[in-house]
Amino acid sequence: MKNLTRAEAAGFLLVHDNFCILNHRRPDGDAVGSAAALCRGLRQLGKQAWVLTNPETSRRFAWLLEGLTKEEPSTNDTILAVDTAAAGMLPKAFAGFAEKTALSIDHHGSNTPFAGETLVDPGSASCAELVCDVLTILGVQLDKDIAEAVYVGLSTDTGCFRYANTTAHTFTVAAFCAQAGAEIFRLNQELFETNSLAKLRMQAWMVEHMQLLDEGKLAIVAIPRAVEDLLQVSEDDMDNISSFPRTVAGVCMAATLRQTKHGETKMSIRAVPGYDAAAICAQFGGGGHKGAAGATTSLDLNQAAEQVKEAMLRAN
Amino acid sequence: MKNLTRAEAAGFLLVHDNFCILNHRRPDGDAVGSAAALCRGLRQLGKQAWVLTNPETSRRFAWLLEGLTKEEPSTNDTILAVDTAAAGMLPKAFAGFAEKTALSIDHHGSNTPFAGETLVDPGSASCAELVCDVLTILGVQLDKDIAEAVYVGLSTDTGCFRYANTTAHTFTVAAFCAQAGAEIFRLNQELFETNSLAKLRMQAWMVEHMQLLDEGKLAIVAIPRAVEDLLQVSEDDMDNISSFPRTVAGVCMAATLRQTKHGETKMSIRAVPGYDAAAICAQFGGGGHKGAAGATTSLDLNQAAEQVKEAMLRAN
Repeated sequence: MKNLTRAEAAGFLLVHDNFCILNHRRPDGDAVGSAAALCRGLRQLGKQAWVLTNPETSRRFAWLLEGLTKEEPSTNDTILAVDTAAAGMLPKAFAGFAEKTALSIDHHGSNTPFAGETLVDPGSASCAELVCDVLTILGVQLDKDIAEAVYVGLSTDTGCFRYANTTAHTFTVAAFCAQAGAEIFRLNQELFETNSLAKLRMQAWMVEHMQLLDEGKLAIVAIPRAVEDLLQVSEDDMDNISSFPRTVAGVCMAATLRQTKHGETKMSIRAVPGYDAAAICAQFGGGGHKGAAGATTSLDLNQAAEQVKEAMLRAN
Repeated sequence: MKNLTRAEAAGFLLVHDNFCILNHRRPDGDAVGSAAALCRGLRQLGKQAWVLTNPETSRRFAWLLEGLTKEEPSTNDTILAVDTAAAGMLPKAFAGFAEKTALSIDHHGSNTPFAGETLVDPGSASCAELVCDVLTILGVQLDKDIAEAVYVGLSTDTGCFRYANTTAHTFTVAAFCAQAGAEIFRLNQELFETNSLAKLRMQAWMVEHMQLLDEGKLAIVAIPRAVEDLLQVSEDDMDNISSFPRTVAGVCMAATLRQTKHGETKMSIRAVPGYDAAAICAQFGGGGHKGAAGATTSLDLNQAAEQVKEAMLRAN
C-alpha cells in the first residue's frame, strides 16, 4: 500500500471536512498531543473537527483536549487516526472504527496499515512532529494551544530529548513550539520533574536491593509482589522503572524483575551499546532490541533472578 | 561600557589572530564547551587558537579540549574569555590575565565587564549558544567536534532543556548541533542519565526521611553530617540535590538542610511559581530568587529544621 507524503496528507485534509480523530489505547502524551494539535489546526482552517472521547485518557494529558472532544462520530464524518500503529491498538470503545478510518498519521516502524490512506514516517521521533509538519504545509499558524499539544507529544515520546530517537527535526519543531508561546518550562516541570512519592519509594527500595555484578557493569534487582503492594505503586509509577538501575554510573546492562499477579516473573533488561539485552531475553522466550528487551517466564522470582544473572554473566 | 553585538564580536575575531582562551573557576560544561567550540571555530578559519589549561577542569568535560590546550599564553596573544561573569571568576592560575583580556563573551546577567571589549547577552541560555551565533556569522561550518562542544554547553546550562532559561534559540542551536553530527543520545546518556550509587543512596535516604507538611505542599529534609559520611557522598553527588524533594508530586516548596563541617546549617529551598523561597531564606540571613534560595545559619540542624518548618508554614 502506498505511503502518503506529508504534502499528500495535507492535500487529503484540505479537500475533506467534518473530521473525527481517534488515537490509541491507554493514550500517551504523543497520542493525545497529536490528536489535539491536529484538531486545533483543522479548526483554524475553518474545518469542523473533533477528537473522539477516548475513555482511557489519563488526567495527565486530558487538559490538552478541553473543548475538543465529542462522544461519537456522525455518519458522514471523515475519521482520522493518529499515533496508532495497528487496528488492534484502538481502544475497545472504538470497535468498528478501524475500517472506517480514512487517513492514519503515524510514526511507528511497526505500523500495519488499516486506514484508507496512511502517512507513516518511522524517522519521526513523535507523531506530533509529523502532525506539525502537515499543519505547516497547510499554512496553519502555530498558536500557544497547538504548540503546547505538539510539544507534549514530542517531549514525552523522546523522554524530553533524551531517547535515541531524538533528531535535529525534533529540536527544530521544539523551537517552533517555544517561539509560538508554548510554556516549555512549566510543561517540563509537570511532565518530567514530578514523581509520585510511591515511585520514589520504589526507586529507594531498588537502590537498597540492587545487586551489582562483574565490577559494577551488570545490575539486577528482583521486586517481590509484596513490596509493590506495600509501597502501593500503581502501573503508572512502574512505567519505565526498568530504566532506573541502568542509570547507576558504570552499569552497562541492568535487569529488573517483577512478579505478575499469576506468580510468573516479568523481566525487563536495558543495556548500553555493546551489550545485547534481546539476546538475554530470548533465552527466556522474550525479545526486543539490543538496548531494551523483555520476557515473561513461569519461573518464580528467585529462580528467574538466578538464571538471568547467570545468563548476563555468561554473555559478558 | 559599550556591549558589542554578535557581528561586532565576529569582526573583532576576524581582524585578530593568535588567540588564547580563558574560562572560569571550576569550569562547568558551558565554560569548557564554549572554549572548545570557539577554539575549533577559529582554527577552522585558519587562525592560531588555544585554550589555556584550566587546572580546575573536571574529567567529565576534559575530553572536549583534547589537542586544544596550552600551558601559558605567548606575549603577543589575543586573550579571550568565555562564560566568565567577572575578573574574580577566573581561576587563581589565571591571576593577572583579567586586565589582558581583549574580548569577553558571556551570558550572565550579573556580568561585570573586565575585558577590552565585551559581548554579553543574558537572554542566551548558555554561552555556547552565543559562541555558536558568532561562529555562524564568521562562516564557520559546524563539524562534529564543534557541534558536540556547543551541545555540551547548552545542554548542561539548561539541565537538558528543563530549566526556565531554555528558549526557542536554544532548541534551534541544538538542532544545528544534531544536524552537524553531534551524538545527542550518547552525550545525554553521559551527562544526564548517569548517577553515582552514592547519590542514589542519598536520594533514597531523603525519600525515607522527608517530612511532608500542609497536605504535602511543603517538604523538608534535614541531612545529618553523619549520614553524608556514611553514604560517602562527594560534593559532586550533592550538587543540585536540593532540587530533589521538590520533584515529589504535589510539593510546591521544599527545604533541604545540611550540616557544614563547622556545625553550621546550610539550607537550600526550591519553590514553584506562587511560592517565595527567597523570603524564607531572608529570615535566616540568606537570599536568592523566588524559585531557588539559600542561607547558612549558626543554628544546629534540628533547631534550624524546626524554624524553617515554622517559617514555611507561616508563609503558606
